[in-house]
Amino acid sequence: MDNLIDGRAIAGEIQAETAARVIRLKAGGITPGLVFIRVGEDPASQVYVAMKQKRATEVGIRSETKVLPQNTTTAELLKLIDQFNADSTCHGILVQAPLPSPIDAPAVYSQVTATKDVDGFHPLNVGKLMLGDPSGFVPCTPAGIHELLIRYRIPVNGAEVVVLGRGNIVGKPMAAILLQKGRQANATVTVCHSGTRDVTSHCQRADILIAAMGVPEFVRAHMIKPGATVIDVGVNRVIDPTSKSGTKLVGDVAFSEVQPKAGRITPNPGGVGPMTIAMLLANTVRAAEQSVGMGRA
Amino acid sequence: MDNLIDGRAIAGEIQAETAARVIRLKAGGITPGLVFIRVGEDPASQVYVAMKQKRATEVGIRSETKVLPQNTTTAELLKLIDQFNADSTCHGILVQAPLPSPIDAPAVYSQVTATKDVDGFHPLNVGKLMLGDPSGFVPCTPAGIHELLIRYRIPVNGAEVVVLGRGNIVGKPMAAILLQKGRQANATVTVCHSGTRDVTSHCQRADILIAAMGVPEFVRAHMIKPGATVIDVGVNRVIDPTSKSGTKLVGDVAFSEVQPKAGRITPNPGGVGPMTIAMLLANTVRAAEQSVGMGRA
Repeated sequence: MDNLIDGRAIAGEIQAETAARVIRLKAGGITPGLVFIRVGEDPASQVYVAMKQKRATEVGIRSETKVLPQNTTTAELLKLIDQFNADSTCHGILVQAPLPSPIDAPAVYSQVTATKDVDGFHPLNVGKLMLGDPSGFVPCTPAGIHELLIRYRIPVNGAEVVVLGRGNIVGKPMAAILLQKGRQANATVTVCHSGTRDVTSHCQRADILIAAMGVPEFVRAHMIKPGATVIDVGVNRVIDPTSKSGTKLVGDVAFSEVQPKAGRITPNPGGVGPMTIAMLLANTVRAAEQSVGMGRA
Repeated sequence: MDNLIDGRAIAGEIQAETAARVIRLKAGGITPGLVFIRVGEDPASQVYVAMKQKRATEVGIRSETKVLPQNTTTAELLKLIDQFNADSTCHGILVQAPLPSPIDAPAVYSQVTATKDVDGFHPLNVGKLMLGDPSGFVPCTPAGIHELLIRYRIPVNGAEVVVLGRGNIVGKPMAAILLQKGRQANATVTVCHSGTRDVTSHCQRADILIAAMGVPEFVRAHMIKPGATVIDVGVNRVIDPTSKSGTKLVGDVAFSEVQPKAGRITPNPGGVGPMTIAMLLANTVRAAEQSVGMGRA
C-alpha cells in the first residue's frame, strides 16, 4: 500500500538544498562549523552523534565531537560550552541528550548562546517559537514533521491536529508550530498526555495525529479516523525473543494495523528520524548564514 | 443564581497577601518599585495605567508613570527602557499596550530585562513558561485565571480545557500553563481560533471554557456543556443606543443566557479583570524579592 510518507526522500531533498547553501557560504569564505558535545558512553547517544556527524560531513559542514567523561560536572560542561560560544568558527553547538542525571540539564541547554542553539532548546528560542517570531531556531523533530506535512501537501490549515505527548523536545513545540496563524499552520491543536481522560476519542477526530509519547504501539487502528495522516515519532526498545539481540525498536503506532486505515503514514524507521537530522543541518547552515548577515531574519 | 467566580474578592485576597510581602520587604529596607511607560494618549490605556498605579499604591508598591508623546521612536523608547533596566530601585517595568503602530512592539517587549518583565511578555519568560521552568514571569491575565481556578477548587487535573483565541497575551500562555504536568494543571488542552472549523463542538466538550478571542458575546448557551466552568476574558466595546455614550462593554460570553447552564462563570466586569492587576502586583513584589535573593527560584 503506497501511502507512506518517505522521510528519507524528503530528508535527502533538504540535505541537497543545505549542501547548496554550504557551497555558497564557502564561496564567501565561511565553512559552517558544528560541535557535538557528548557526556558519558550511552550507546544510543554514540550512535546518534556518529550518524549526525556523518550527515554533516556529507553536506559540507565541518564538525567535531567532544566526548566528556560520565562524571563531568555541570560547571565543567558550562565552561566548555562557553569556549564554543566564543569561537567564531563554531556556528552550532549540540549537547546530546540525555545527560547523566547529576548534571543540571536546563542550565546546560540555556548556556548555549541562542544564536548557536541549533537544537532550538534554549528558552529564548522556545519563547520566540511560541510568540510566532521567526528569528529563533525551531527544535529539529517538530520542524522536520512540519516539513513533511508541507512537502506532502497535507492540508494543515483548519485541520484538527492531535498531539500525543507534551515533551519539551517534540510535543509542546509541535503544538506551537501548528497553531500559529499562517497558511502552513492555522490548525486546531489538542495536546493529549498521560493525564488525558479519553485519549481514544481525541485520536478518533484527528485529521493529523502526531504520536510522541513514547509508549510502544499505543496508537491502534480503532483509534484513528479513516484517511487521517499519522506521524510516528516514537522510538521504543521492546523485548523480541525472535531477534538476535533479544530486543527490537518499535514506534508509538501499531504500524501494520494502522497503515491500511490511514490516509498517509510515516514508516518507522525511515519517517521522522531522518528529518530530525536534516533539520539540524539546515539550522546549522542558517546559523552560519546569520553570523555573516545572510539568510533569514 | 450564585455560581459566580468573584474575581474582585480573589484579587482582594491576593492583594492582601502581596501587601504583607511588601511589609516584609520594607522591613529589610527594600521598597518595590514599578514603572509604567505609556506612549500617546489612548484613552483606554490612560484608564488602565491609572487603575494599575492606584492598586500598586494600595499594596505599598512605589510606582511612577512615564508618558511619552505619540510620535516617540522605537530607539527613544528602547533608551528609556535601558535606563530603568539599569535602575536598581526599579523592580518591574510595564510598557502599556497597545503601542502606536510605527513602534516595533516585539523589540520593545524584548528590551525589558527578563528579571523586570513583570508582564511576562519577554520571549525568555514565554520560553520558560512553555518549558515548565518556574523561574520566569507568567503573563498576568492567564496567571490570574489559573489562580481563580485554584482558589475556587475547580478540578483542572485531567479536565478538558478549550481555549478560544491564540493571542500571545492570553490564549497561548493560558494553554501553556494548563497543559503542564502537575497537580494544578495537567489538563487536556485544545486551542481554537479563527481558523477552527467547528468551534461549537469543541466548546460543547469543554469542562473549562476560556473565551479570549475578542468577539462580542460569541459563546452562547447551546455551545457549552452543562455544568462547565466558563471564563470570560473579552472586553469588547459595542454600540448601545440605550446608553449615554452610545456604546457599552461586553465580554466574549453571552452572560445572561450562559450563566444558568454553567457550573461556574466569571462575571464581566468583576471576573478576570481585577485578577490581571493583582497578578501584576504579585509579579512586581516577586521581582523585588528576587533582586535581594528572597522568594521563589
